[in-house]
Amino acid sequence: MGSKYPRSMQCFLPLWTLVLEVALIVIFFFFTSYDTSSQDPKKLMETYRVLQDVTIMVALGFGFINSSLRRYGWSSVAFNLFLLALAVQWAVLLDGFLEQLSPKKVVIKLSSIKLATMSAMSVLISAGAVLGKTNLVQLVLMALVEVTAFDVMRMIQRKYFIKDNHVNMMHIHVFAAYFGLMVAWSFRRPLHERVMEKDQTAKSSSLFGMLGTLFLWIFWPSFNSALLLDSPNERKNAMFNTYYALAVSAVTAISVSSLAHPQGKINMNHIHNAVLAGGVAVGASCYLISSPWLAMVLGLTAGLISTGGALCLPMYFNHVLGIHDTGGVYYTFGLPGLLGEIAHIVLITYQVDQTKSAMFGLKPQNMERTSCI
Amino acid sequence: MGSKYPRSMQCFLPLWTLVLEVALIVIFFFFTSYDTSSQDPKKLMETYRVLQDVTIMVALGFGFINSSLRRYGWSSVAFNLFLLALAVQWAVLLDGFLEQLSPKKVVIKLSSIKLATMSAMSVLISAGAVLGKTNLVQLVLMALVEVTAFDVMRMIQRKYFIKDNHVNMMHIHVFAAYFGLMVAWSFRRPLHERVMEKDQTAKSSSLFGMLGTLFLWIFWPSFNSALLLDSPNERKNAMFNTYYALAVSAVTAISVSSLAHPQGKINMNHIHNAVLAGGVAVGASCYLISSPWLAMVLGLTAGLISTGGALCLPMYFNHVLGIHDTGGVYYTFGLPGLLGEIAHIVLITYQVDQTKSAMFGLKPQNMERTSCI
Amino acid sequence: MGSKYPRSMQCFLPLWTLVLEVALIVIFFFFTSYDTSSQDPKKLMETYRVLQDVTIMVALGFGFINSSLRRYGWSSVAFNLFLLALAVQWAVLLDGFLEQLSPKKVVIKLSSIKLATMSAMSVLISAGAVLGKTNLVQLVLMALVEVTAFDVMRMIQRKYFIKDNHVNMMHIHVFAAYFGLMVAWSFRRPLHERVMEKDQTAKSSSLFGMLGTLFLWIFWPSFNSALLLDSPNERKNAMFNTYYALAVSAVTAISVSSLAHPQGKINMNHIHNAVLAGGVAVGASCYLISSPWLAMVLGLTAGLISTGGALCLPMYFNHVLGIHDTGGVYYTFGLPGLLGEIAHIVLITYQVDQTKSAMFGLKPQNMERTSCI
Repeated sequence: MGSKYPRSMQCFLPLWTLVLEVALIVIFFFFTSYDTSSQDPKKLMETYRVLQDVTIMVALGFGFINSSLRRYGWSSVAFNLFLLALAVQWAVLLDGFLEQLSPKKVVIKLSSIKLATMSAMSVLISAGAVLGKTNLVQLVLMALVEVTAFDVMRMIQRKYFIKDNHVNMMHIHVFAAYFGLMVAWSFRRPLHERVMEKDQTAKSSSLFGMLGTLFLWIFWPSFNSALLLDSPNERKNAMFNTYYALAVSAVTAISVSSLAHPQGKINMNHIHNAVLAGGVAVGASCYLISSPWLAMVLGLTAGLISTGGALCLPMYFNHVLGIHDTGGVYYTFGLPGLLGEIAHIVLITYQVDQTKSAMFGLKPQNMERTSCI
Repeated sequence: MGSKYPRSMQCFLPLWTLVLEVALIVIFFFFTSYDTSSQDPKKLMETYRVLQDVTIMVALGFGFINSSLRRYGWSSVAFNLFLLALAVQWAVLLDGFLEQLSPKKVVIKLSSIKLATMSAMSVLISAGAVLGKTNLVQLVLMALVEVTAFDVMRMIQRKYFIKDNHVNMMHIHVFAAYFGLMVAWSFRRPLHERVMEKDQTAKSSSLFGMLGTLFLWIFWPSFNSALLLDSPNERKNAMFNTYYALAVSAVTAISVSSLAHPQGKINMNHIHNAVLAGGVAVGASCYLISSPWLAMVLGLTAGLISTGGALCLPMYFNHVLGIHDTGGVYYTFGLPGLLGEIAHIVLITYQVDQTKSAMFGLKPQNMERTSCI
Repeated sequence: MGSKYPRSMQCFLPLWTLVLEVALIVIFFFFTSYDTSSQDPKKLMETYRVLQDVTIMVALGFGFINSSLRRYGWSSVAFNLFLLALAVQWAVLLDGFLEQLSPKKVVIKLSSIKLATMSAMSVLISAGAVLGKTNLVQLVLMALVEVTAFDVMRMIQRKYFIKDNHVNMMHIHVFAAYFGLMVAWSFRRPLHERVMEKDQTAKSSSLFGMLGTLFLWIFWPSFNSALLLDSPNERKNAMFNTYYALAVSAVTAISVSSLAHPQGKINMNHIHNAVLAGGVAVGASCYLISSPWLAMVLGLTAGLISTGGALCLPMYFNHVLGIHDTGGVYYTFGLPGLLGEIAHIVLITYQVDQTKSAMFGLKPQNMERTSCI
């Protein structure tokens, strides 16, 4: 179950979380109110559908993706729900206060819950790296610290680097992967066989891992376009590109995986992770890319990097750095996330160049919708 | 499988259900027609999406929530689908006839199927209490009787107490829990060890129970707002409050559950049930509450009651009353449902008081959207 | 895992699929562009939701429906994702070229991906018949050939028989079932016990099969109405009729299944397949039927045919024809599909008769929305 306490501390978890919950209720009592402005009901429902898609991803997808580990199957799903429910409450408050930077009442909209759920996802990604090394009290602490760090980082970016919400949010993969690895590093201890044994995949429940993977795979286009509700064209691009990148990275990951097996069989763990690499890699730049081939190239590269990482990195991490990355967070989110950031910077630079040359050139161009290639 | 018949009765189930199906087809032939009025396609799709959400809840959620019991895993899912498919057909007819109170043709709309699916949910809740004690023929009878009783109750409420559909529907949890317990009581027999053994949770399939729980958890806001399609503000409130109540009850249930285990581990059965208590408790009053803290308090209380019930009640039920509540229906739906009804009455009273004092007071207030706090 | 290669061929799968992927990327680079016309954002989102529903069906539904076989559980899900991701890319290109019949740039819309996903479903249906007899390289070849054949067939129908997209698409069940059986026939070999043993259902994972079945059951109304986005009335009819046919076939299949078991128990395999027969049978004519009873009769007949087929056909197929239909594709999709085609022809004829007699008769009728009964 992963949550072993000394006998004397057994009451600590319920006590600590109940106090936390009561504190949250008191803060909500004094500092929040619902948004009562009358809104376009169609727009409301659209936001609700996106929130639902994101919730399916985080509750079902992240819940089950690590459930194939032999000993953490059930606790993975239960802890995931616990962390999600807690982190969303904290993120809604924090987002509100950081946005207005004053202790006024925070007005809660459906879109604030959507944003908070996406911030809470950082905790769920990181939890994959420390699964089985931490108990629930430690995870609660990690959740509070990580959501705070991530939200402050996003606030600073928004204030000083004038970036929009979508781009800020898409740093989540790299941020959460490194945060998780850092926590895993601080909990490192000599690996004995028992941990190795724990790490093995349970055959019978690897289908559950696949279930989580598929939920993430299906709803990833919703995630990548969730913060682009206001510009239909960027949103459409984001859906298209995420869809293509995911398709190509699935094909790549599954076929390359068989290279490593002595009998050419497909390794389940590679699939659980590498299939999603395309969605991660295309995240930051999905609204910019305007032809499918570029998304497909990103998906292919991400699939190769992620499967390659799954083959080589665990050895290196375990023996050289002493980090034990239980859920393979580094090559699922870290490496493809870095690839995505690089691609985004290249595309932005290229676009700025193009825009400049167009401005100083002779033929006028439609500047409204800038896009590369 | 739970469906043991004497050899001589083996043909009874197919014969009986086929006759029932043919009878239903004949009634549909003479007494129903589709709604052919041209409708706003946007509104049509909105209703379809809500119907889909409710169907996911009843088919996947209720199908899998009891699948973690060692011996009823598979039959739980299959019986659930069977009862759902049958009860929806019956409820559509019954709803139609009870609404017009005359043998005219019933016009079937998408919203009638939505309402019928929600009525059918009462059968699926009750089935949790009698799982493993009844065969499928008895369950079919129970389904027909329960849907009829619930629909007649709702019709009487609508005619004589002038309550709207949402409030009528939200009695479903309490109604279904007590109906199920009554049926379980009528099937009571001396508990021998074999039944006890059957009741145990299968470790390997407790993840399936969690899957059902998560589907219910994710789509509960859709359920609680399904009958509020016409007033966007009440609908938004219903979503917000259900979301917050569920989040708090999940945190509460998971953390308090570890108190009962000698090593501080989390009990899977508590989670399956208590996580949803918040959604049940906030059901009746979700459209009235206009600040998150009240929903959170309801969620906290419901989570505590439900986990407490799961800890203490099975003993009491088994030994004192002789009722064997297989799926824990009483503390999942019964107790939180009662809490919800009490909260609703308090809120309505408070609101009437507020409205009165405002009417006779000096300062005029915007009366259009009455809400407490 | 089902993918055994001679040692010398181990690199063949990765090499072959990577070359294929690169070739696809090159074709996309030269011959495709995204649709950049500004569209009604509401309509865009509607198409996205339908695409999402269809993707859930094909990725989760078809992935898990065959996962209950003892030895192919995991490979069934992974191969399914692989084939889906590859076939969609190929189908988008092919659909585009076949529509314009010239090597101009293909403009990719969200609705092209929706159509391509539905075409790719033919591969996933056929894969059920050859599961465990083919390796992944052979499956990739089958996917490319089958999508090409199905798309060319649809193109010819569209050009010369003036049928609309919906009717063309609904031949998918019969086409895919016979295509799959043909491939299974070409791979036939003497059955020894080992294959028989492989064919057995794994008890523990039959719940996964049920999960796949339920996803298909829930989203089938979306599938049957996916190509009727432009006419709200036909779309509403399609939803209604699919819903009723599915409900009746579920009740029929589950109750008749118990006849075959010596102790009156329900056979899991019958349910996995026969529950969906109603949706298949009503597919072609769902937009035409305008009263529920007709859809219910189709559902009842399809449920009986499909369960009957599951009881009698495997023996016949194995021993007389030498075909080993692993996933029971013939009685899940083939027979109910044939029933659906016959029903469609009868209804069209009846409708033409009615229209004629109305045209030559005396009383004028509203011709705009023709529907039978």
